Amino acid sequence: MSKESLYLDDLSPGMRFTAGPITLTEDAIIAFAREFDPQPFHTDPEAAATSFFKEHVASGWQTAAVTMRMLVDAAMPFVGGAIGLGVEISWPRAVRPGDALSVVMEIMEITPSTWNPGRAVATLKTTTTNQDGEIVQVMTSKNIVFKRGHVPGGR
Amino acid sequence: MSKESLYLDDLSPGMRFTAGPITLTEDAIIAFAREFDPQPFHTDPEAAATSFFKEHVASGWQTAAVTMRMLVDAAMPFVGGAIGLGVEISWPRAVRPGDALSVVMEIMEITPSTWNPGRAVATLKTTTTNQDGEIVQVMTSKNIVFKRGHVPGGR
Repeated sequence: MSKESLYLDDLSPGMRFTAGPITLTEDAIIAFAREFDPQPFHTDPEAAATSFFKEHVASGWQTAAVTMRMLVDAAMPFVGGAIGLGVEISWPRAVRPGDALSVVMEIMEITPSTWNPGRAVATLKTTTTNQDGEIVQVMTSKNIVFKRGHVPGGR
Repeated sequence: MSKESLYLDDLSPGMRFTAGPITLTEDAIIAFAREFDPQPFHTDPEAAATSFFKEHVASGWQTAAVTMRMLVDAAMPFVGGAIGLGVEISWPRAVRPGDALSVVMEIMEITPSTWNPGRAVATLKTTTTNQDGEIVQVMTSKNIVFKRGHVPGGR
């Protein structure tokens, strides 16, 4: 579960947070793909060999979901939660069975809310890399962050 | 599995494809969140009541994953697969237990590859709505599409 500890008051651009690794096994890649992205290059290692990717690869949506898991576990410790308004994602390189993924999240910008003094929107850049340090996903997100004393539910 | 039938040759801006609905049950929302987005407003209906959302809601990543499932099932029938280079997503409204989601995918633009005459990049806009027609996700994606005779694996 989330280790929430930071309020808007504690955040500034340039701060970085890390988490991981999480390893994606072949079985996990197939299971996710069967449920959410049932294309042969994700569900069938043999068929994948003659696909665009020429090998068995994970769905980009699994990379995104596992990245979120790492952010919630450790790399986005905002009191009130990791609440995203929207994201931009690119997948410069495929994730393969056995890849161990890690994330670095950096605070790029903090924009105070014009209508709610207890909140701001943080622009965050989350880079997901494999065990060789190769970038498999870059995500820029806009997240709501709360000032001390202004967290929904009262904190 | 994907009903792939269309080549680059067959595509033009303005074409629209639809799929769904898929209903997100409370159990499915909790199960996905426990694995990928373990925050109380996704995993615990009771705790969610005092959260930012004030009710139990699905992870945006589950909305994205279920949207992908509908695209693969019916709404992105491209021969060679639904191969995304990157996406932009916004979540204007939360998804709640019992919501039945549907998608409309529209081809916005097709840009021929400058280095591979058998390929192009299609810019696609996919709108996910609930049973009341309210928009829960808007996604713009860049996808690779293949000309007849230029599909990896040979089609």
